Amino acid sequence: METIKPGSKVEIETTDKKFTGILMERPQLADDKHIVIKLGSGYNIGIKKEKIKNMKEIKEGRKKEEFKLKEHKIDPEKPTISILATGGTIASRLDYLTGGVHSAFTAEELISAVPELEEIANIRGRQIFNKFSENIQPRDWIKIAEETAKEIRKGIDGVVITHGTDTMHYTSAALAFMLKTPVPVVLTGAQRSSDRGSSDAAMNLINSAFTAANGNFSEICIVMHGEMSDSYSLIHPATRVRKLHSSRRDAFQTVNSKPIGKVENKKIEYTERETKPRGGELKLDTKLEEKVFLLKYHPGLIPGIIEKLIDMEYRGIVIEGTGLGHTSEILFDSIKEAIDSGITIAMTSQTLYGRVNMNVYSTGRVLLDLGVIPCEDMLPETAFVKLMFVLGHTKDPEKVEEMMLTNYAGEITERSIPWPP
Amino acid sequence: METIKPGSKVEIETTDKKFTGILMERPQLADDKHIVIKLGSGYNIGIKKEKIKNMKEIKEGRKKEEFKLKEHKIDPEKPTISILATGGTIASRLDYLTGGVHSAFTAEELISAVPELEEIANIRGRQIFNKFSENIQPRDWIKIAEETAKEIRKGIDGVVITHGTDTMHYTSAALAFMLKTPVPVVLTGAQRSSDRGSSDAAMNLINSAFTAANGNFSEICIVMHGEMSDSYSLIHPATRVRKLHSSRRDAFQTVNSKPIGKVENKKIEYTERETKPRGGELKLDTKLEEKVFLLKYHPGLIPGIIEKLIDMEYRGIVIEGTGLGHTSEILFDSIKEAIDSGITIAMTSQTLYGRVNMNVYSTGRVLLDLGVIPCEDMLPETAFVKLMFVLGHTKDPEKVEEMMLTNYAGEITERSIPWPP
Repeated sequence: METIKPGSKVEIETTDKKFTGILMERPQLADDKHIVIKLGSGYNIGIKKEKIKNMKEIKEGRKKEEFKLKEHKIDPEKPTISILATGGTIASRLDYLTGGVHSAFTAEELISAVPELEEIANIRGRQIFNKFSENIQPRDWIKIAEETAKEIRKGIDGVVITHGTDTMHYTSAALAFMLKTPVPVVLTGAQRSSDRGSSDAAMNLINSAFTAANGNFSEICIVMHGEMSDSYSLIHPATRVRKLHSSRRDAFQTVNSKPIGKVENKKIEYTERETKPRGGELKLDTKLEEKVFLLKYHPGLIPGIIEKLIDMEYRGIVIEGTGLGHTSEILFDSIKEAIDSGITIAMTSQTLYGRVNMNVYSTGRVLLDLGVIPCEDMLPETAFVKLMFVLGHTKDPEKVEEMMLTNYAGEITERSIPWPP
Repeated sequence: METIKPGSKVEIETTDKKFTGILMERPQLADDKHIVIKLGSGYNIGIKKEKIKNMKEIKEGRKKEEFKLKEHKIDPEKPTISILATGGTIASRLDYLTGGVHSAFTAEELISAVPELEEIANIRGRQIFNKFSENIQPRDWIKIAEETAKEIRKGIDGVVITHGTDTMHYTSAALAFMLKTPVPVVLTGAQRSSDRGSSDAAMNLINSAFTAANGNFSEICIVMHGEMSDSYSLIHPATRVRKLHSSRRDAFQTVNSKPIGKVENKKIEYTERETKPRGGELKLDTKLEEKVFLLKYHPGLIPGIIEKLIDMEYRGIVIEGTGLGHTSEILFDSIKEAIDSGITIAMTSQTLYGRVNMNVYSTGRVLLDLGVIPCEDMLPETAFVKLMFVLGHTKDPEKVEEMMLTNYAGEITERSIPWPP
């Protein structure tokens, strides 16, 4: 059983079922109790080794001619974009086409898998790393920012970053704070939704490439399906976007703002949202303080947890409070203790939509008096990433507060409606 | 300054401004650095005591005739409902009308403030306690359940519970698990949204009373504005509802399900959602394990935090994971340690919408192997409350898993779309 090479077609007989598929490598796997095969449907399944009665290679195997590398011709009339791969479901789509046993991710492979890309732009392709996005850590954001900057310095017209969808919005927010770019930088991925057999990878990649090549703006953004069918994609601003469904292809939604635009059939329709036009200087600033915690308030939350975060030497806590930015009063003393010991505490709302306003009720006012920073209409995830960035730049509480309440990357909208009226 | 009684009209001169309003009592306040007055607009503001240069009572004061108690006539032809008050913004609406200096909350006061109530039903009114909902704790859910059961035993036709909106959906989920009711039990509150000067309390109370008196079902539900204007309310199922906006009157939304119905002009329009019809036995079961933590996963989350939760002798952790129910692999060892030490770990998704499915990716499969319970399409807040309830009834891991995956109160929908297909 151990002699069958990954990439081979296998037939597996378990104690209760028979499976046929391509044996996969499992480079990131944390256990060795399973083997993984890719079924004909394109889905990977894991099979417990102890359940396997028999596994044999099917010799006729996968037809090599199914996937042929196309030669990539450079057209000087076309824009040039770089596609940087970081892993995730969108990569596994390519794995499926290429046999799934390596992740070289060259321009040739990309174009062979999604031929429409060549019509849009000259493509450069490169893999930064290969991780499921649930495993992506703040230091990976730095790596992605650095590699993106390297590509931009080559004078290209735009960058596409393929990424797992689970934490793509954390990464987009991090890039928005760390990178000032003269060209569009587009993150995209694939949901491979349960409601459709086919993958959304191709359309997301095509619309992302089109946006990177032709977008009239120079911001970080996420381009993903705008609705469940393969009709159009939305261009979401980096700091205002969130994965709001576990499986649907239109899982990503702009929150508390408007999308930058809509991409459909090689045409971008912009909304009235202001964007930074192409051009300007490239700036890379990757200083981050990793010791920041995102704490969701819930009834029954006890002060002890904040005391533990103090013990663990966290430098910042972003609270996902309730409503307009509240927690139970039983936490007030521990919040005071944290702030007194030099920890920044910032308040967002678990309602996700709307703005915190800590002047309306006494709970909010007391928290403000204690020194909690009200994060306006920032998403909790964005405020969390931003606090890492801010604490990477200053430890001075006044400066931290000033920076948290300054709009750097579209993350805060000025209050349009005064409250109280 | 200390001799002016709460409820008096006062004029306050601070170092930079002048205010006129009604001096309020602050029974729940955690600091004594402020006084609070209610402005003519109905909003309360806090004023720092140290800033106050002068405060004087305006003797002509509040006109007593503004608020007159109406006599409440019992009509044997009408249904009878009980309105139980727990505090929150909806109470402060009444406070404003009554002068805001006590919270007796009798039927007479309710009807005097919202005369339409008398047309709907014979009203009983009673205050259970007076708390902002951010301060409501699991033991308060028990109190509310007990008091609601007391009212139901009197043979009434329905119950309305007025409640702060911040954590109303946690309370509704808790009541749904603790209370089997033969009549509708309706939670309602007021958002007093920033985009409208007037309060939403009256319409919410009227539509809630109508639903309690006439609803054809016997479930716990939340009745709140269905849109931003004063048109209709939606009846949300207790375990499928969430506050999704910090200030809008239509902040409450049904997630992963359908509302029970729509209430408008004393008419209920039901959706096709199945409900439990009126009748059946009253059952009250309030056993809860309070040592449950709701942990939101974020990039950079370190295993140390789970180790601290083990130290703190938590009995259960509901993880708000990413996507289909994932965390970074760096947490796997600590999750194993927690489960080995007898802590239940259950997985939900921070996408809120959609279902966890831990069979699709290796990350999910490993977590399942470790013994993490996949909470289907339960909201994180509902799974959190449910785990408190389940651990209140059994410590046996198999029984815990079985109960978590059994639908008790509409919190789980059977998978409609298989994945992988």
